[in-house]
Amino acid sequence: MPKYYAAKAQLMDLLQELGEGGVLPTERELAERYGVARETLRLALRELLLEGRLRRRGRGTVVAGPKIEQPLSLSSYTEGVRRQGRLPGRSLIGLERFAAEAQVADELELAVGAEVWHLERVLLADDERVGLESTYTPVALLPRLDQDFDPGSSFYEYAREAAGLAAGGGLERIETVLATPREALLIGTPPALPMLLLHRRSWDGAGRVFERVRTLYRGDRFSFTAELRGH
Amino acid sequence: MPKYYAAKAQLMDLLQELGEGGVLPTERELAERYGVARETLRLALRELLLEGRLRRRGRGTVVAGPKIEQPLSLSSYTEGVRRQGRLPGRSLIGLERFAAEAQVADELELAVGAEVWHLERVLLADDERVGLESTYTPVALLPRLDQDFDPGSSFYEYAREAAGLAAGGGLERIETVLATPREALLIGTPPALPMLLLHRRSWDGAGRVFERVRTLYRGDRFSFTAELRGH
Repeated sequence: MPKYYAAKAQLMDLLQELGEGGVLPTERELAERYGVARETLRLALRELLLEGRLRRRGRGTVVAGPKIEQPLSLSSYTEGVRRQGRLPGRSLIGLERFAAEAQVADELELAVGAEVWHLERVLLADDERVGLESTYTPVALLPRLDQDFDPGSSFYEYAREAAGLAAGGGLERIETVLATPREALLIGTPPALPMLLLHRRSWDGAGRVFERVRTLYRGDRFSFTAELRGH
Repeated sequence: MPKYYAAKAQLMDLLQELGEGGVLPTERELAERYGVARETLRLALRELLLEGRLRRRGRGTVVAGPKIEQPLSLSSYTEGVRRQGRLPGRSLIGLERFAAEAQVADELELAVGAEVWHLERVLLADDERVGLESTYTPVALLPRLDQDFDPGSSFYEYAREAAGLAAGGGLERIETVLATPREALLIGTPPALPMLLLHRRSWDGAGRVFERVRTLYRGDRFSFTAELRGH
């Protein structure tokens, strides 16, 4: 077993003892306690940070709470985070109107050049930045998005109220990726942090594709759940 | 934009040109071509390797194919990989019989001390090691697992044939984690590679929990898909 991993295993026992919110001793104290070099200890702490078991708070490090469990379903981010007793929020990065290029047109089942909105928002949970959402939607379906829509609120609720668009079905794909420097900056994470990327296309009851979303969630803060049916 | 990321963006264009299986020029050639230091280039290559866009082959590096898309459903790994035109396989790490401790007993809805099997296998796709599966199942339901079961085959097929256990439903949770040194060794990955971890509990038509599985998939090789229904 590598030395850093032995230190990590000891740290995991310590986290258990300290409990959520418990403050970690200094690096020097820990390195002495486990008889390892500072560099070795840092390697172990770094993995625990990347995995979401530790969090930085001010100049210190505390034991993190459990990851947010988000259902893989057509409920919104807002509903998912609320169910976990946390306060959901969103802050606007940008809303732009442009002519769809081939890929976006294809995914939204539009002609190339058809007008689409691109809405980009940072996802918040209790004021902490936890993700980045990039939504494409046809201007023809939601022509007044730039005037009526409160970017701090749920896009699904707006689509339902403004245009009667209710989710009839969708396809989702989930993978792990590394954040780009821009994404890391917007979400405020270290650039090497593994993220969960969800690709989603949704259509309404009439089969019209009304969104193509790419949401990046902090891998140290989120897990996703699905109910499976037998066959 | 950090230098390594500018190099990465140029490399991504190059991968597009080369296409799947295309061989990358040497590090020295690439560093010269993009006017960056070898160290900077290596950082960019490392991210592309972690993300599964590049693969090592012998002493060289080639453009990787797309990730395997595995449906989040109660079909087996075998079926999922076959659907992608790849040859699924499994190799046995161990099969042990022991008395369930509190956590496993709880998850399998058994009394503490009830006998359970622990089956651990490496998942293969076209002979490449792509994951590690750890299954707990009650001995009472499958008493002859150690005698009848071919560890290279599908556990679901065996459970159906040997005991009429057909999946009635399940709960799955997906998250990103870092492999432990033991896991990295068994799967043959670099230790810092982000992995996708799936936790699953499944029950049969009568509601009996017949498995508790923890499967680690290489994050650079897999993505998961789900069909969503409206509400």
